Amino acid sequence: PVRTVQAHSGAAELGPYRHYMQKEIFEQPRAIGDTLEGVEGITPELFGDGAYRVFKDIDQVLILACGTSYYSGCTAKYWLEDIAGIPTQVEVASEYRYRTSVPNPRTLVVTISQSGETADTLAALRHAQGLGMTHTLTICNVATSAMVRECELAYITRAGVEIGVASTKAFTTQLAGLFLLTLALAQVRGRLTDEQEAAHLKAMRHLPVALQAVLALEPQVIRWAEDFARMENALFLGRGLHYPVALEGALKLKEISYIHAEAYPAGELKHGPLALVTSAMPVVTVAPNDALLEKLKSNMQEVRARGGVLYVLADADTHIQSAEGLNVIRMPEHYGALSPILHVVPLQLLAYHTACARGTDVDKPRNLAKSVTVE
Amino acid sequence: PVRTVQAHSGAAELGPYRHYMQKEIFEQPRAIGDTLEGVEGITPELFGDGAYRVFKDIDQVLILACGTSYYSGCTAKYWLEDIAGIPTQVEVASEYRYRTSVPNPRTLVVTISQSGETADTLAALRHAQGLGMTHTLTICNVATSAMVRECELAYITRAGVEIGVASTKAFTTQLAGLFLLTLALAQVRGRLTDEQEAAHLKAMRHLPVALQAVLALEPQVIRWAEDFARMENALFLGRGLHYPVALEGALKLKEISYIHAEAYPAGELKHGPLALVTSAMPVVTVAPNDALLEKLKSNMQEVRARGGVLYVLADADTHIQSAEGLNVIRMPEHYGALSPILHVVPLQLLAYHTACARGTDVDKPRNLAKSVTVE
Repeated sequence: PVRTVQAHSGAAELGPYRHYMQKEIFEQPRAIGDTLEGVEGITPELFGDGAYRVFKDIDQVLILACGTSYYSGCTAKYWLEDIAGIPTQVEVASEYRYRTSVPNPRTLVVTISQSGETADTLAALRHAQGLGMTHTLTICNVATSAMVRECELAYITRAGVEIGVASTKAFTTQLAGLFLLTLALAQVRGRLTDEQEAAHLKAMRHLPVALQAVLALEPQVIRWAEDFARMENALFLGRGLHYPVALEGALKLKEISYIHAEAYPAGELKHGPLALVTSAMPVVTVAPNDALLEKLKSNMQEVRARGGVLYVLADADTHIQSAEGLNVIRMPEHYGALSPILHVVPLQLLAYHTACARGTDVDKPRNLAKSVTVE
Repeated sequence: PVRTVQAHSGAAELGPYRHYMQKEIFEQPRAIGDTLEGVEGITPELFGDGAYRVFKDIDQVLILACGTSYYSGCTAKYWLEDIAGIPTQVEVASEYRYRTSVPNPRTLVVTISQSGETADTLAALRHAQGLGMTHTLTICNVATSAMVRECELAYITRAGVEIGVASTKAFTTQLAGLFLLTLALAQVRGRLTDEQEAAHLKAMRHLPVALQAVLALEPQVIRWAEDFARMENALFLGRGLHYPVALEGALKLKEISYIHAEAYPAGELKHGPLALVTSAMPVVTVAPNDALLEKLKSNMQEVRARGGVLYVLADADTHIQSAEGLNVIRMPEHYGALSPILHVVPLQLLAYHTACARGTDVDKPRNLAKSVTVE
């Protein structure tokens, strides 16, 4: 199957939206649809000519990225190890380029960058190449970028131009590209049956409709944002696939609302951050099932007396109900492996509406640039 | 060389100290000295009978731990890849046990736990064993613990009993044990000459004296603590070996002073957290050299107008001087690979004196237990 990559201008008009970030959040069904357009089946050639040969020639993956793109890489690690059975490391580009690591020529080096010009990620790519790792692939939103030119293989996401400094549709389209990469590597490694391929493709084609249903949760998220607008701190918890979603949710809140939000793997709460929890430090948990929520509730027991409050983004199949100190938004469906793409959306909306309530400059947060093209 | 492991009661009396945590910080020269006592040369057998055969039979390391022990593991990754040339992954125990990973029987599974009873770390160890990884080693402070019983190999640190909930001497003695492990693995892999072994041993034997000199920085740290006592938030930055030190410094401040301190790799500052920096969010940077400090200063330029302040723990060989918005404490010496063991000490003191100034219950912070023996 041939996949034609089109140049994308992206509609830069605001239309009915107050901010570009809001517009870009609501564009995600379209952006994911476009990113997956023309994908009729899983094949290595989605990533370029000669991809089959490259995928046959590697036995591990090293993902290099910064910021939000790093969190999409962290998500992909869970997919790649679980579904494709391929050992994966994810490293912050600025850390990787300055340390002595152990290169393995049978590595697929994957860079992730919206602009394809992120200085540290480009430098990390060149560092890896200098160590003899020639198999490189990028997930990138700009087909004409340095990153795409310098990598052997590429998947161009079709998010369109992203104007808001806080990345939204670039993140979810990166995840879509990384999920395709996972399936292509699984296939080459004999770990993807035709039935599995068909089921995954069906779930991916359902994403635009599923995203619309999640965007319809906005009124519930706005009620949470009214609480968060009065906070200066927050903790975000997640486990497994949803830990990177918690990281990304905390980063969004930091970037545009200037609330000090920090994410932890859920199991680490009792190893330190629980000491911070009071009525002024709400705890957001992403996608817990009933078992994980029971553990968190028991961790939080002492904290309830100090006013600690849980905000739970729950899976569709949980039985959790809102109660005193426990606010629940339940997702419309159970999404399986694709759930990070859906669960991040209410967190984007939470950051957006909290920032609006606080009156910050949503599209141009202080001190930050859209593409970090310097070190 | 035979190394006799002694039972340690640890002196549990407070003596001249106000809190156990303070006592334990000042015990570190003794604790490190005891932990390295009897180590006359580098040999795999420091870790138990048959260690040579095990070390010959592995080609990667997987470190599993929680909380502070996880940060000692993160430090060891830099050592193991740089000095021993062995690919190393570090994973939060509660994350590892609940996800599908790719087991490799040629892995040395290293668990780190002060008590040897940490529930998630024990469960992660058993999970790894269940996946067919039989080569296991623990760095542990309690010789009679479940962790020591269930691992093939062990290094028993001699921190003595640690009473303060916030770990200090357990962390630095774990680092000493992990550095020995790095050297032993380097030796087995033909990457440690006699000259290098002698130089490393000399540097390790110098640690107690070096630690005393760092503890003498206390008056300068107390001046920083007067500033921090008025803060509710802080950012900690580090790069490479000092990024885990920044993580541990932030955790200490969280645990006992209830200040929301968060650590980032220095290069990630401009990918989000820089938006948070104001006069109410000081930025602590650990061990920067002049080149890194220049980058940070240029990142912080805009923020200076909003009152952003840098607190720099600088290497001995830097030329940085304190100035408006820039507070410098210079370390007494340059420590090379061992510097995490030294650089963490001023951060322990900073957390301790900040907590004292805020009047919190230093040895028993709210909501936290000393050993997390439940999930």
